Amino acid sequence: MNKKLRIGFADTTFARADMVGFAIDEIEKKFPELEKEFVRRTVPGVKDLGVECKLLYERDKCDIVMAFGMVGGAAVDKTCGHEASLGIQMAKMLANKHIIEVFVHEDEGENAADLLSIFEDRSRKHAVNAVLIATNQSELTKLAGKGLRQGRQHVGELKRN
Amino acid sequence: MNKKLRIGFADTTFARADMVGFAIDEIEKKFPELEKEFVRRTVPGVKDLGVECKLLYERDKCDIVMAFGMVGGAAVDKTCGHEASLGIQMAKMLANKHIIEVFVHEDEGENAADLLSIFEDRSRKHAVNAVLIATNQSELTKLAGKGLRQGRQHVGELKRN
Amino acid sequence: MNKKLRIGFADTTFARADMVGFAIDEIEKKFPELEKEFVRRTVPGVKDLGVECKLLYERDKCDIVMAFGMVGGAAVDKTCGHEASLGIQMAKMLANKHIIEVFVHEDEGENAADLLSIFEDRSRKHAVNAVLIATNQSELTKLAGKGLRQGRQHVGELKRN
Amino acid sequence: MNKKLRIGFADTTFARADMVGFAIDEIEKKFPELEKEFVRRTVPGVKDLGVECKLLYERDKCDIVMAFGMVGGAAVDKTCGHEASLGIQMAKMLANKHIIEVFVHEDEGENAADLLSIFEDRSRKHAVNAVLIATNQSELTKLAGKGLRQGRQHVGELKRN
Amino acid sequence: MNKKLRIGFADTTFARADMVGFAIDEIEKKFPELEKEFVRRTVPGVKDLGVECKLLYERDKCDIVMAFGMVGGAAVDKTCGHEASLGIQMAKMLANKHIIEVFVHEDEGENAADLLSIFEDRSRKHAVNAVLIATNQSELTKLAGKGLRQGRQHVGELKRN
Repeated sequence: MNKKLRIGFADTTFARADMVGFAIDEIEKKFPELEKEFVRRTVPGVKDLGVECKLLYERDKCDIVMAFGMVGGAAVDKTCGHEASLGIQMAKMLANKHIIEVFVHEDEGENAADLLSIFEDRSRKHAVNAVLIATNQSELTKLAGKGLRQGRQHVGELKRN
Repeated sequence: MNKKLRIGFADTTFARADMVGFAIDEIEKKFPELEKEFVRRTVPGVKDLGVECKLLYERDKCDIVMAFGMVGGAAVDKTCGHEASLGIQMAKMLANKHIIEVFVHEDEGENAADLLSIFEDRSRKHAVNAVLIATNQSELTKLAGKGLRQGRQHVGELKRN
Repeated sequence: MNKKLRIGFADTTFARADMVGFAIDEIEKKFPELEKEFVRRTVPGVKDLGVECKLLYERDKCDIVMAFGMVGGAAVDKTCGHEASLGIQMAKMLANKHIIEVFVHEDEGENAADLLSIFEDRSRKHAVNAVLIATNQSELTKLAGKGLRQGRQHVGELKRN
Repeated sequence: MNKKLRIGFADTTFARADMVGFAIDEIEKKFPELEKEFVRRTVPGVKDLGVECKLLYERDKCDIVMAFGMVGGAAVDKTCGHEASLGIQMAKMLANKHIIEVFVHEDEGENAADLLSIFEDRSRKHAVNAVLIATNQSELTKLAGKGLRQGRQHVGELKRN
Repeated sequence: MNKKLRIGFADTTFARADMVGFAIDEIEKKFPELEKEFVRRTVPGVKDLGVECKLLYERDKCDIVMAFGMVGGAAVDKTCGHEASLGIQMAKMLANKHIIEVFVHEDEGENAADLLSIFEDRSRKHAVNAVLIATNQSELTKLAGKGLRQGRQHVGELKRN
């Protein structure tokens, strides 16, 4: 195609790592020949991501959009994360497009280094998913039911013992 | 009818079994004379299923759509599964069509073999439900209130003792 | 009126009692002179009811629609029931019509007979509510704030002691 | 204005007190000179209120609408109340109008008399809110951040100690 | 630009502090040269904020809107706060605009003074966020992933140890 793939990123000032940085790095490495351009919009927190993603499609004419966020460890934060995810579901329905949600929960990591590795691994793997959905979704079907994980190692397909 | 029934499947790379494989096998066995064709789209996880199902109707012109996914055992996974199901509800409303949701919770099985049998049984039985809804829904009314179960054995109708 | 009241029923194969049977029997008894016809559509489970009810209005041109379902006793079933009810809320909003939801929770009954009596009582009483909403809603206002219950005995209005 | 303010009330047969009665009495007392008329529609339970309120705007052309309901004390009742409130949120969005939700939880009261006083106080105070929103919303801004409560005594503004 | 930035505030009589007062003060201090005007609408509680914010965009033609509210400490209050936030998500989707939600939970503070400081800090910081989103969103991207907090001190970016 002679049109650049327009990849939209929505991220937050609340998160504690530059998730978009990981995603861009991964896309550059894994898809070096892809004609692409990036649009990045930052909002305060996860609850602001849904409408921003919708605007990335409707206002910024992106071809695929990713939503990056961190959910804090307190109960009220969990509720916020849930509301944010429902907002993203609404945005998908109204935009009629995929939004690849990359959320990290602050209490997922055993320590700061472990948490950072989750941020990085999940952002990188979902960046690949986003590009594949936009360009070559059948590649994902080869991996259907294979127990893939983002943030941690893949767990694999169940085997009959 | 001289038009093929177009059956759409949305599944995930997160799940740990090829649920669509079970569904196709069951449809071939139970409806050998049905003129049909399959459209399969794979996404990363359950939260991506809602809009994919909507696209299977609107973009791919399917006649009936199934959503296959696995929900992990941690609390955050349960929340994701809930968000995914609400997204599927939204998709149904906007597409004005049924989406047969086939979700397996990773903690439903007592062991890997048991979990696999749930994957298989639920996928097979709901594949039949999907075809019946699209072709002959009155067959289901014969079974109304009969305590049918997918994934486990049917429990049956309540009896006055 | 010289037009028959068209009453739509959506029910499930998952439920363990023929709730629609109770409803039809009650309507025949309580409104013997009402010109009416019934449309019944069965789906697998409660999460399929929302869009079916919407279709009963939009496709089948019903005048009033009831949704009958049973919610299992496990935590995952409770979540399904919640999602189903939210789907029904969405359907009401988009159809701009009432949908009388008749849900029984499997753990409401002390035993099978008690559970069956709840199925019957709730189905019968809500069938009357459905017909009144469609034909004579002001009858319900006479009962406003009176502590009516479906499935159990009415609890009545609070009294200043 | 020479047009009467049309006030819509949706209430339920499930509640255990005549909340609309309190509201009408309060409006008559507090706004004796207001040209007004009342439209009252009763439904079975709280989950029926959302679409009824929407119809009070769209079908009955009300200028402001209130939703009165009681939420039972069991876990399943709490879930119903939550679903009802989300339905009311949807109705507001689609009608593009306020709906003053007056919900009393059956377990709020220490005894029947206390519960009744909550029914009365909350219904009365929110009736005033409803009229002000429809006629003179800037009156509410004078009370912004003042810790007002309906059902109980006002708690007041926080003071730096 | 020669058009004034129109900033909408929705707040409540339920809250126990004048959050809009803090926001206006902060905007005056941080953006002294900005041509701006304020529109303030007060509603009873947090569940009334969603549609009010939508009206602030559609009826009052604001350029950016903030929603200020306090969520009480009881379980029922938490549920109300959740419903309010979902209503705000719906409003964002339908208005296709950001709504900066500034919610304080009454149990966040260790005492009244601490709670007041949270009200003030969160209102001030989010007021800046709101203006930046409306006028210069790229300023927020400089702070992406930096662990910013409103109501408390910033926690900062994660460091590999």
